[in-house]
Amino acid sequence: MASSSIVSAMTKQGAAAAVRHAKARLGLTWTQIAEAVGRPVAWTTSALLGQQPMSEAEAKAAASLLDLGEDVQQAFRLQPTRGALDSPIPTDPTIYRFYEVLQVYGPTIKELIHEEFGDGIMSAINFRMDVKRERDPTGDRVVVVLNGKFLPYQW
Amino acid sequence: MASSSIVSAMTKQGAAAAVRHAKARLGLTWTQIAEAVGRPVAWTTSALLGQQPMSEAEAKAAASLLDLGEDVQQAFRLQPTRGALDSPIPTDPTIYRFYEVLQVYGPTIKELIHEEFGDGIMSAINFRMDVKRERDPTGDRVVVVLNGKFLPYQW
Amino acid sequence: MASSSIVSAMTKQGAAAAVRHAKARLGLTWTQIAEAVGRPVAWTTSALLGQQPMSEAEAKAAASLLDLGEDVQQAFRLQPTRGALDSPIPTDPTIYRFYEVLQVYGPTIKELIHEEFGDGIMSAINFRMDVKRERDPTGDRVVVVLNGKFLPYQW
Amino acid sequence: MASSSIVSAMTKQGAAAAVRHAKARLGLTWTQIAEAVGRPVAWTTSALLGQQPMSEAEAKAAASLLDLGEDVQQAFRLQPTRGALDSPIPTDPTIYRFYEVLQVYGPTIKELIHEEFGDGIMSAINFRMDVKRERDPTGDRVVVVLNGKFLPYQW
Amino acid sequence: MASSSIVSAMTKQGAAAAVRHAKARLGLTWTQIAEAVGRPVAWTTSALLGQQPMSEAEAKAAASLLDLGEDVQQAFRLQPTRGALDSPIPTDPTIYRFYEVLQVYGPTIKELIHEEFGDGIMSAINFRMDVKRERDPTGDRVVVVLNGKFLPYQW
Amino acid sequence: MASSSIVSAMTKQGAAAAVRHAKARLGLTWTQIAEAVGRPVAWTTSALLGQQPMSEAEAKAAASLLDLGEDVQQAFRLQPTRGALDSPIPTDPTIYRFYEVLQVYGPTIKELIHEEFGDGIMSAINFRMDVKRERDPTGDRVVVVLNGKFLPYQW
Amino acid sequence: MASSSIVSAMTKQGAAAAVRHAKARLGLTWTQIAEAVGRPVAWTTSALLGQQPMSEAEAKAAASLLDLGEDVQQAFRLQPTRGALDSPIPTDPTIYRFYEVLQVYGPTIKELIHEEFGDGIMSAINFRMDVKRERDPTGDRVVVVLNGKFLPYQW
Amino acid sequence: MASSSIVSAMTKQGAAAAVRHAKARLGLTWTQIAEAVGRPVAWTTSALLGQQPMSEAEAKAAASLLDLGEDVQQAFRLQPTRGALDSPIPTDPTIYRFYEVLQVYGPTIKELIHEEFGDGIMSAINFRMDVKRERDPTGDRVVVVLNGKFLPYQW
Amino acid sequence: MASSSIVSAMTKQGAAAAVRHAKARLGLTWTQIAEAVGRPVAWTTSALLGQQPMSEAEAKAAASLLDLGEDVQQAFRLQPTRGALDSPIPTDPTIYRFYEVLQVYGPTIKELIHEEFGDGIMSAINFRMDVKRERDPTGDRVVVVLNGKFLPYQW
Amino acid sequence: MASSSIVSAMTKQGAAAAVRHAKARLGLTWTQIAEAVGRPVAWTTSALLGQQPMSEAEAKAAASLLDLGEDVQQAFRLQPTRGALDSPIPTDPTIYRFYEVLQVYGPTIKELIHEEFGDGIMSAINFRMDVKRERDPTGDRVVVVLNGKFLPYQW
Repeated sequence: MASSSIVSAMTKQGAAAAVRHAKARLGLTWTQIAEAVGRPVAWTTSALLGQQPMSEAEAKAAASLLDLGEDVQQAFRLQPTRGALDSPIPTDPTIYRFYEVLQVYGPTIKELIHEEFGDGIMSAINFRMDVKRERDPTGDRVVVVLNGKFLPYQW
Repeated sequence: MASSSIVSAMTKQGAAAAVRHAKARLGLTWTQIAEAVGRPVAWTTSALLGQQPMSEAEAKAAASLLDLGEDVQQAFRLQPTRGALDSPIPTDPTIYRFYEVLQVYGPTIKELIHEEFGDGIMSAINFRMDVKRERDPTGDRVVVVLNGKFLPYQW
Repeated sequence: MASSSIVSAMTKQGAAAAVRHAKARLGLTWTQIAEAVGRPVAWTTSALLGQQPMSEAEAKAAASLLDLGEDVQQAFRLQPTRGALDSPIPTDPTIYRFYEVLQVYGPTIKELIHEEFGDGIMSAINFRMDVKRERDPTGDRVVVVLNGKFLPYQW
Repeated sequence: MASSSIVSAMTKQGAAAAVRHAKARLGLTWTQIAEAVGRPVAWTTSALLGQQPMSEAEAKAAASLLDLGEDVQQAFRLQPTRGALDSPIPTDPTIYRFYEVLQVYGPTIKELIHEEFGDGIMSAINFRMDVKRERDPTGDRVVVVLNGKFLPYQW
Repeated sequence: MASSSIVSAMTKQGAAAAVRHAKARLGLTWTQIAEAVGRPVAWTTSALLGQQPMSEAEAKAAASLLDLGEDVQQAFRLQPTRGALDSPIPTDPTIYRFYEVLQVYGPTIKELIHEEFGDGIMSAINFRMDVKRERDPTGDRVVVVLNGKFLPYQW
Repeated sequence: MASSSIVSAMTKQGAAAAVRHAKARLGLTWTQIAEAVGRPVAWTTSALLGQQPMSEAEAKAAASLLDLGEDVQQAFRLQPTRGALDSPIPTDPTIYRFYEVLQVYGPTIKELIHEEFGDGIMSAINFRMDVKRERDPTGDRVVVVLNGKFLPYQW
Repeated sequence: MASSSIVSAMTKQGAAAAVRHAKARLGLTWTQIAEAVGRPVAWTTSALLGQQPMSEAEAKAAASLLDLGEDVQQAFRLQPTRGALDSPIPTDPTIYRFYEVLQVYGPTIKELIHEEFGDGIMSAINFRMDVKRERDPTGDRVVVVLNGKFLPYQW
Repeated sequence: MASSSIVSAMTKQGAAAAVRHAKARLGLTWTQIAEAVGRPVAWTTSALLGQQPMSEAEAKAAASLLDLGEDVQQAFRLQPTRGALDSPIPTDPTIYRFYEVLQVYGPTIKELIHEEFGDGIMSAINFRMDVKRERDPTGDRVVVVLNGKFLPYQW
Repeated sequence: MASSSIVSAMTKQGAAAAVRHAKARLGLTWTQIAEAVGRPVAWTTSALLGQQPMSEAEAKAAASLLDLGEDVQQAFRLQPTRGALDSPIPTDPTIYRFYEVLQVYGPTIKELIHEEFGDGIMSAINFRMDVKRERDPTGDRVVVVLNGKFLPYQW
Repeated sequence: MASSSIVSAMTKQGAAAAVRHAKARLGLTWTQIAEAVGRPVAWTTSALLGQQPMSEAEAKAAASLLDLGEDVQQAFRLQPTRGALDSPIPTDPTIYRFYEVLQVYGPTIKELIHEEFGDGIMSAINFRMDVKRERDPTGDRVVVVLNGKFLPYQW
C-alpha cells in the first residue's frame, strides 16, 4: 500500500478553466473544437464546460487541439455532477433572459405540452439543443431550439 | 366624491382561474381560443394566464368564447406584473425540466450566443416562442423554439 | 356573453382536503379507495392528494365511494401543477427521513446507477413506487420501492 | 508540549476525492471495492464518499485495494458529519429525480406508512438500501429499495 | 353520490387556536388539561397545539374540559403533518434560545453522543421531554430534559 | 514599525481541527481531556471546538495533553464568534434530530415555560448542559439536560 | 368603552388596488392625477401605490378625482411601511432590469460616488426621481434620473 | 500534445483586484484611466471591475497606464459572466440605497414607463449611465442618470 | 360539551391593527396612550403592537382610551409570539437603518462589550430602550438608547 | 509595461485579522489603540475591523502601535465595501441580541421616530454610537447609544 495519497487530480471545473484559457490563447472557436471532436457544437461546449462525460477518443481529440495535458484529458472523461449556475437565479444577463422566459412563459409551455401530448414532460436527458442565427432586416435573431423526447406519465 | 370604495375588481390571477375553469367546462383548447382571439397560441395562452395585456378586441373575443363576464374581460386588458412561478426553483416536473436545461446548458448557450453574435443577449421582450411536436419513430419529441432579437451590448 | 364570472371551481388542493375529511368520516382506507378506483394504492393516493389527473371513470369511482360531489369529481380530473411539499426542506419527520436519505445516500445512488447503467437517470415520470411492510422479529420494517425506467443521456 | 501544530490531517472529503481518483486510475468498480471491504456495495460506496465511519479492517482493505496511504485510511475511520448535497435542492439530474419523487409522492408515502403501521416513521438510521437493475423489454428499469425499521411515535 | 362537497372540516391549526382561546377564557392550565386527558403535560400540550394525534378518549376528555365541539374533537384525532415553526430560524426569543443552543452546542452534543454510544442518534420519535423548575437562590432555573432512545447506525 | 505583516495566527477553527486530529491520534476521550482541563466535559468539548474562550491554565492543560503547540494554545484563549452549524438547518442526522425537536416541540416548551415561570426565557448564556446515558432494557436512552437560568421580561 | 372592535379600516395596499381600479375605469393618467394633487408625478404615483403619506389636501384631491371614498382617503394619509417588491429579486422584467443594472453597475456607481464626493452615499430619503422619454431616431430611450443629496460619512 | 496543463490564467476578478491596487499605488482616478482608454468613465470603471470585455487597444491602454502585465491585459479582454454583488441584497450602504430605491419606487418606475411608452422595458443592454454632481446650496447632490433604449413587448 | 367551536377570538395582530386605526381616528399619540396605561412609551407601543403581554389594568386603560372592545382588551393580555418583521431583512428604510448599523457596527459592539465586561451579552430580555430627540443646530438627531443587563457566560 | 502582475495587496479583511492577532499578542485594548489614533473608540474599532477608511495619519498611528507593516497600513486607508456579518441573521449571541431587539422593537422605534420627528429616518451615515457600562446594584448594564441625524423624507 502506498504511504502517500497526494491528490493532484484535475477536476472537471479545473479542466473547463484550462479549456477557456487555451481556447482564447489559440484563437479557436467552439465550432472548430466540435469539429475536431466530431460531435455537435452545443454538446461539445457543454462537455468541455464540465457537464458531459467524453469518450476516450473525444477527450483525446479535444485535448490535442487545445494543446492540453493528460490530466485535463482524464478530467474530460469523468462522470460529471451536473449543474453549472453559480446561484439558483442566474445574474449574468445573457443567461438570466432564459430564466425570465421560464418566469413569464413556464406555465404556458406546460399547458401547450399537455394540450398536444397529454400529461408528461419534455425530457432533458434524451435531449438536444441548438443555438442559431436567424437573419432579419430589423435585427438578426437568436433562435434556441430545445428538442427533447416526450415522456408520458406512466405508472 | 363617493363614500364607499368597495374594491371588487377582478385581478389577472382571478381571471386566469376563471379561464381554466371555463376552458375545462366548455371543452375548448388553447388553439381554439387563440384562433378566436386571432393571435399565436403561445402568446394567447400566456396572456390568458395573466402574463400579457390584451387589446379590447382580443379581450372581448376571448371572454365571449369562454362565456366570461365583463369583469374578466377588463382583467384581460390590464398591464400585468409578470412572473408566473410559485417559487424561484419550480417544483412541477414539466416546468422544472426547463430549469434543468438552464442549469446544465445555460453557460453553453451563453458561449454560443457570444461566438455567433458577439457580446449581447437574446431579448426576452422582442421575443416569440412555439411548442411543437416532432414525429419520431422512437417516440415523438417536444420541440420548444425560443426566438428573440439579438441585442448587442451597446453603450 | 355572461356578465358574471364568479369562480367557485374546486381546486385540486380543495378536493384533497375534502378527500381527507370524507375518508376519516367514513372510516375508509387508501387501499379500499384504490380498489374502488381500480388503480395501485400509491398512485391512487397521490392522485387524490392532487398530484395526478384521473380519468372520468376513476374520478367517478372515487367521488362515489367518498360521497363527494360533482365539483370534487371535476377537480380529480384536472391536470395538476405538481409539488406537494410546504417548504423546500420538509419539516414533517415521516417525510424528512426521505430527504435525509437523499442527503446521506444521494451521491451513492448516483454512483451505483452510473456503474450499472452508464450516464443517465432513473425516470420519475415513467415511474411507480410501493410502500410495504417487511416482517422482522426485531421490529417490522418499512420498505419503499422506487422503480423508474433508466433513461440514458442521449443527444 | 510540541511547539508546532501543523495540521496536515486528511479530511473525509479529501479522502473521497482520492478514492474517486484512484478508482478511475485503477479501473475498479464499487462492487469490487465492496467485495474487498466485505460490506454491501451501497454501504461501502457511501462510506468511501465520506458518509460512514469504517472499522480499522475495512479501512485497511479499501486503502490497500485502492493503493492509498495511511492518511486516507485514517480518514476512512473518522466519524462523519453527514450530509452530502452541495445545495438544499440538488441540481444534478440523477440526484434531483429523487428530490422530485419526494415533492410528488412525499405525502403519499406518509399516508401509506401511517395506514400500514400507524403514527411513526421509517428509520433512516436502522436502514439499508440497494440499487438494482430490472430487465424490461421496453427499457430496463432502475429499482431503488429503501428499507428502514418502522419506529412508532412512543412517549 | 352527494352533489355538494362543502368542506367545513376543522384543521389541527384551527383546533389549536380554539384551544388557546378556550384555555384563556376558562382560566385553565396545561397541567390541568393534561390531568383530564391522562397524559404527560408536555405530550398533551404538543398534541393540543397540533403536533400529535389523540385517541378518541383523549380527544373527548380534552374537548369536554375546554367546552369545545365535535369538530375540534375530530381534529384532535387527525394524523398531523408535524412542524410548528413559522420560519426556519424562529424569531420568538423563548424559542430562539433553543436554536442558539443548537448553534453553539450542536457539534458538542454530537461528539458526546458518539463518545458514549458510538455512531448513532438520539431518537426524536421514541422520545419524551419535560420542562421543570430548579430552585436556585441566585435565580430559579429552567430545566429541559430531552430523553430519546439511542439508535445506532445499523445496516 | 515592522515592514512585514505576515499573518500566521491559528484561528479557533484551525485549532478545533488540530484537536480532533490529535485526539484521534492519541486515542483520548473528551472526558479525559475535560479532566485534564478541570472543567465539565460538555463545556470543555464546546471550548475545544471553538465556542468558548479558555483561561490560560485551561488552554495550557489542553494543549499539553493533546501535544499541541503554542499557536493552538493561543487560539484556545481567543474570544469566539459563536455559531457552529454549517447551514441554518443542520444536515447531520445526529444534530438534525434536535432541530426536529424544536420544530415539533418548540411552541410546547414555550407554553410550559410561560405556565411555570411567566413571561420570559431560559437563558442560553447562564446555561449548562449535560449528555447522559439512561440504562433501559428496551434500549439505552440518550438524555440531554438543558439547564438555564430563567430570565423574566423586565423593563 | 365600545364592546365591538370590528376593524374595517382600509390599508394602504387596499387603497392602492382601489386606485388602480378607478384609474382604469375613469381612463385617467398618473400625470393627470399628479396635477390634481399638485405634486410631481413620480412622487404622486409612489404615494398612491402606498409608499408615501399624503397631506389631507393631497389625499382629498386624489380621492375626489378618482371618485373614491373617505376610507381610501384616510389610507392615503397613513404613514407607510415602505417596500413594494413581492420578492427580494423582482420577477417583472420592467422592474428586474433595474436590479440587473445594480448587479452589473452597482460597484461602478459606488466607485464614482467616492471619486467625486469622498466616502458617503446618495440619500434615498432626501431624494427625487424622474422618468423621461428621450427622442432618438434609432429608438426612443427611457431616461431615469435618480437625484439624492450626498451624505458624507460623518461621526 | 502537452503533458502539463497548469492553469495560471488571470481571471477578471483577479484583474479587478490588481487594478484597484495599482490605481491606489499610482494615485490615479477612474477619470484619468477612462481618458487613457478613450471611453466614458462609467463604462471604463465597470470594464476594469470585470463587467465588460475590452478591445485589444483599450486593454493595452489600461494596462499600460496602470503598469500591469500581459496576463491582466488578457483578462481585460475576456467575455465576462456579469453580476457583481456579493449577495442578492447588497450590504454596502452606498450600493444598498439603490436597492432601496427599487424597493420603494420600483412599481412607480414601471407605471411611468408604461404610461409614457406602453408595455415594455428600459433596456439594460443598449444602455449607458452617468454619475454626476449637482451643486446645491443646501448640500450637493448625487445625480445618477440611467439611459436605456425602450424595448416594446413585441411578439 | 358545546357542539360548535366557532373561533372568533381577536389575535394580537388584529388588535394591533385596531389600535393603529383607533389612534388615527382619535388623533392620539403613543405618549398619551402610554400615560393612560402608566408605562414607558416604548414599552407601551411595543405592547400595543403585539410584542408584550399587558396586565388586566393596563389592557383596560388602553382599550378604554382607544374606545376598543372587550375582545381587543383580551388580546392585549395574551402572551405574544414575538418577532415583528415581515422579512428577515427589513425593507422599510426607517427600520432598515438599524439593520445597517448591525451590518456595519455589529462586530464593533461585540468587541467593546467584551473589552468592558468580558465574555457575555447585553440582555434583550432584562432590557429597556428609549427614542429621544437631541437638539442640534445642524439638524436634530435621533438618539436610540438600548439598555440591557450584562449577562456573563456562566456555566 | 510590467510583464508580471502578482497581486499581493493586503485586503481590509486581512488587515483586520492582523490587527486582532497583534492586539492579542501585545495585550492592547481598543481604548488604547483609539487614543493612539486620536478618534473615538467605537469608530476606531470599526475602522480597524475594516468598516471605515482611515486617514494617512490615523493609519500610521494604528500600524505603529500594533507593530504592523506598510501593507496593513495601506489597507487601513482603503475605501471599504461595508457589511460585516457572516450571514443575514447573525449567529453569535452577543450580536444576535441586537437583531432580536430589531425583531421585537423595530416597528416600535419606527412609530416613535415618526411621532417625534414626522416621516423620515435616523441616518446611519451621519451617525455615531457608543457602548457604555451603567453601574447597577442588581447587575451592571450595557448601554448602547445610537445617535444619528434625523433625515426627513424630502422630495
